[in-house]
Amino acid sequence: MFITFEGIEGTGKTTQIQRAKAYFEAKGKEVFLTREPGGSRVGTELRKMLLHVDNSDITPIAELFLYLADRAQHVAQVIRPELGAGKVVLCDRFADSTVVYQGYGRGLDTATLQQLNEVAVDGLWPDLTIVLDLDPETGLKRATSRNKDEGKAEEEGRFEAEHISFHKRIREGYLDWASHHQDRIKVAKADGTPDEVFTAVKALLDDITA
Amino acid sequence: MFITFEGIEGTGKTTQIQRAKAYFEAKGKEVFLTREPGGSRVGTELRKMLLHVDNSDITPIAELFLYLADRAQHVAQVIRPELGAGKVVLCDRFADSTVVYQGYGRGLDTATLQQLNEVAVDGLWPDLTIVLDLDPETGLKRATSRNKDEGKAEEEGRFEAEHISFHKRIREGYLDWASHHQDRIKVAKADGTPDEVFTAVKALLDDITA
Repeated sequence: MFITFEGIEGTGKTTQIQRAKAYFEAKGKEVFLTREPGGSRVGTELRKMLLHVDNSDITPIAELFLYLADRAQHVAQVIRPELGAGKVVLCDRFADSTVVYQGYGRGLDTATLQQLNEVAVDGLWPDLTIVLDLDPETGLKRATSRNKDEGKAEEEGRFEAEHISFHKRIREGYLDWASHHQDRIKVAKADGTPDEVFTAVKALLDDITA
Repeated sequence: MFITFEGIEGTGKTTQIQRAKAYFEAKGKEVFLTREPGGSRVGTELRKMLLHVDNSDITPIAELFLYLADRAQHVAQVIRPELGAGKVVLCDRFADSTVVYQGYGRGLDTATLQQLNEVAVDGLWPDLTIVLDLDPETGLKRATSRNKDEGKAEEEGRFEAEHISFHKRIREGYLDWASHHQDRIKVAKADGTPDEVFTAVKALLDDITA
């Protein structure tokens, strides 16, 4: 079982992934947690490059190819082997992030992006994708205060530094993209407490494991 | 004027590019020299990643996307501005390297590779591409002794470490690819002295500048 979590910054993906992990472990499953960018050894270097605020001169097309490189490596070296070992793989961001951030966010053609994703994922699409949906102003406030607490505001601040209108496009992009892939992509409201949000997430997990 | 130089390791690309630079400067042109991977600031980091012998676990598809990222950044941030400033740009490896190394070399589909190149170069194809053609055994001997002299055998040895059959596929790939793009890609024999090789290269430069 391969499940990905999507959404703008500050929607609480990390918290919900931890809850989902506990959910599967309570059912006796082994769970493997991973994320993009940065899920493979080479990917950790790419993650630093992509998220570092000094690299704001990376062009949209170059950025796109770096995410695809990270994804191809991640699928081949990490996700496929862990699934092969019988684990549930929970991934923080995956192919839909590329379509939404580079397409809806930066204006690249979403159909082309999806074709490029097909090359990168090499046939491995998630069984379920959960989009955590939240107002961007709330999300950014959460993300900024979290980054400050963890002392990473300067290292990983490239996306948080974008204008609010960018994040609004991303949010709307997720909702639009989900509406075109309703079989795989489900939306969960993320504006409540972690417990409230997990009630919605759990219903989606119950559906797919039933 | 945008001219790229291609060929297996050890064909003397660096030497011939220096000669071509002198050729254009003697005609009063300003010349900008660059290379792939690594022609842009972000590209220098990608170059280290791509050529480091420790990274032999990079999958063919991930490798492909890293080269495309490097190229997109290089075109947008370096090549296009230098051409815009009226310079002759001479580039050591470009889009054809991707088709030949990832396609003929690693078995990816050359038509798909060419489509991906179209995304990366964003309309900017060379006016002339010169393939320096040499027997791979001779080329590798030259490349290995050069790397040893420059003390970089360990850092940039990933391609030299491939089996000779890989380099033979690359050589044949260049010749086949050139035969399908005869308008743009010209082959020059590279088994003579630098002076002899430049006689052939100069004839191609004379043709395009005439």
